[in-house]
Amino acid sequence: MLAEFDLIQRYFTPPAQGHGVALGVGDDATLLTPATGQQLVVSVDTSVVNVHFPPDAPAKAIGHRALAVALSDLAAMGADSRWCLMALTLDQQRWRDDVAVSAWLQAYAQGFLALCDQHETALVGGDVTSGSLSVCVTVMGEVPSGCALMRSGAQPGDMLAVTGALGGGGGGLALWQQGERDLTHPLLTRYLLPVPRLAAGRALRGIASSALDISDGLLADLAHLRQASGVGARLDADAIPLAEGLVDALGPQQARKAALSGGDDYELLVTIPHTCWAQAQAALAPLGVALTAVGRCVEELGVKGVPSEAETGWQHFVGQAVSDSDPPASRRGEAP
Amino acid sequence: MLAEFDLIQRYFTPPAQGHGVALGVGDDATLLTPATGQQLVVSVDTSVVNVHFPPDAPAKAIGHRALAVALSDLAAMGADSRWCLMALTLDQQRWRDDVAVSAWLQAYAQGFLALCDQHETALVGGDVTSGSLSVCVTVMGEVPSGCALMRSGAQPGDMLAVTGALGGGGGGLALWQQGERDLTHPLLTRYLLPVPRLAAGRALRGIASSALDISDGLLADLAHLRQASGVGARLDADAIPLAEGLVDALGPQQARKAALSGGDDYELLVTIPHTCWAQAQAALAPLGVALTAVGRCVEELGVKGVPSEAETGWQHFVGQAVSDSDPPASRRGEAP
Repeated sequence: MLAEFDLIQRYFTPPAQGHGVALGVGDDATLLTPATGQQLVVSVDTSVVNVHFPPDAPAKAIGHRALAVALSDLAAMGADSRWCLMALTLDQQRWRDDVAVSAWLQAYAQGFLALCDQHETALVGGDVTSGSLSVCVTVMGEVPSGCALMRSGAQPGDMLAVTGALGGGGGGLALWQQGERDLTHPLLTRYLLPVPRLAAGRALRGIASSALDISDGLLADLAHLRQASGVGARLDADAIPLAEGLVDALGPQQARKAALSGGDDYELLVTIPHTCWAQAQAALAPLGVALTAVGRCVEELGVKGVPSEAETGWQHFVGQAVSDSDPPASRRGEAP
Repeated sequence: MLAEFDLIQRYFTPPAQGHGVALGVGDDATLLTPATGQQLVVSVDTSVVNVHFPPDAPAKAIGHRALAVALSDLAAMGADSRWCLMALTLDQQRWRDDVAVSAWLQAYAQGFLALCDQHETALVGGDVTSGSLSVCVTVMGEVPSGCALMRSGAQPGDMLAVTGALGGGGGGLALWQQGERDLTHPLLTRYLLPVPRLAAGRALRGIASSALDISDGLLADLAHLRQASGVGARLDADAIPLAEGLVDALGPQQARKAALSGGDDYELLVTIPHTCWAQAQAALAPLGVALTAVGRCVEELGVKGVPSEAETGWQHFVGQAVSDSDPPASRRGEAP
């Protein structure tokens, strides 16, 4: 295992100084210089083999995905991503020899670091331990003080909207479980290489009244938003944008279920005051990110407009059944 | 497992606002307000069952220890601890029923949160996932800009010193492996409930020329310090303070081995310019923390004064042999 730790050091080159990093990796801890007038935005997500990703997922995807799901939480707050820490636990018995370990780590690091680069996020710390494969990623962002998007600001009358398209995460997982391994299939791409919507989140600062990311499925995450804001919702299920290839792969009924309950989409669910709708559209258009209205917030608690077949549930990777009347605790059950 | 996630929420009460926490747990991420004129100090440590702690360790100790080893890195930087995030991965098959889970979580939370309280550290985020038992703790502290202690500042002529006493971690582990389960035994206490030396680290700001925490064993961590500072060391092995009960438990030779190579002590190893020695002693005296000179930094690289029996190695929990000539990669191999 010691050799592998050396390999990690080879593949995870510490970032140059700068980027708010006063002292990089190599001491007991990292020193960072936060910007003035900003609040820190922090979140942690663990991705565990056989729970959050299949054991035979490509290493590059495991690295990308572990960071992407954590960055998605920063996106939902409208934050600028700045720094991350990555704690990797590796199973010694997983590989037949050091060459195989080296190849795996190189691909894993490529997936992780390419996404870091893309979002100007410096990897500033980490830990490597021996054990069942998992990745724990802490992300740290900044947002101008008082400007963070929260789950709690939705008002009756606000429009409900989602970025991008839904169902790709659940659909991709279903395909993977059926044996599909063509990584260029758009649904597998959506499942294995999700895109954190950081630019969209930033662009909606000062416009959206509330936001969160769709990790557990639209209905489950809408329930979180409704609860935090004390509002109800009327969904227009037919308006929900479906991921490319989803209907072809699953058929129309399962496609809609995947979009409502599949999870793993990492799109943003936002509420937009009616008077700000055009502004919101204009803010996202230059980013090439679609913003689609999927309903309204209403005073009466609960949710209306959910097609009945959605209530029969969606088979998640770990096998929970979900329905709107009893939204699941997150697979990533937030604690505390 | 879902019920357990609910239990976690019961036992890990979110901190009140204040304490630099602008928005606590419950949204996609936490909002923190860093103090002005301070640098952020961040570190992450994963504790894995069967690697960093025995599977039958008391739950309270697992919670305490996972946080303590992370806080120890802040102590080594001379930082004030402010916030932490805790990602817990739990094995569903570990307990026979929900009552047992509940009892375990309650004790675990007690261990973790009592140490939070003791060091005025707010638990501001977390994640709970299903998988092999491990805890990933991210700690965030603050230090006045430019005042952090680093590994790289030691100069030839500086005194080498350690806080507290050494060998307790390794000695406690040895006792545990021999079946000792009396948790009031001082060595078991040292192993299972290590004390992060935060107050001592803070007190040595502006006095110590370098510092790090002793997690891998004095010789291994001294090697890190020598390398970072570009100095050699002459140890006075007879001066090394031995943990209470260590000689009784292991005999004099094994006791000294434990102190040199046992690791898991989480004391500080610091270098003090000769002219500041009295000041350093005076700074720690009010804290009730001993500071003992154990050698000197010298120009000639390498280390002198290591008793020959130390080179025969110390049996770590995961079975690596260590010697001064070939210091081990950390069990917590820092990455990147």
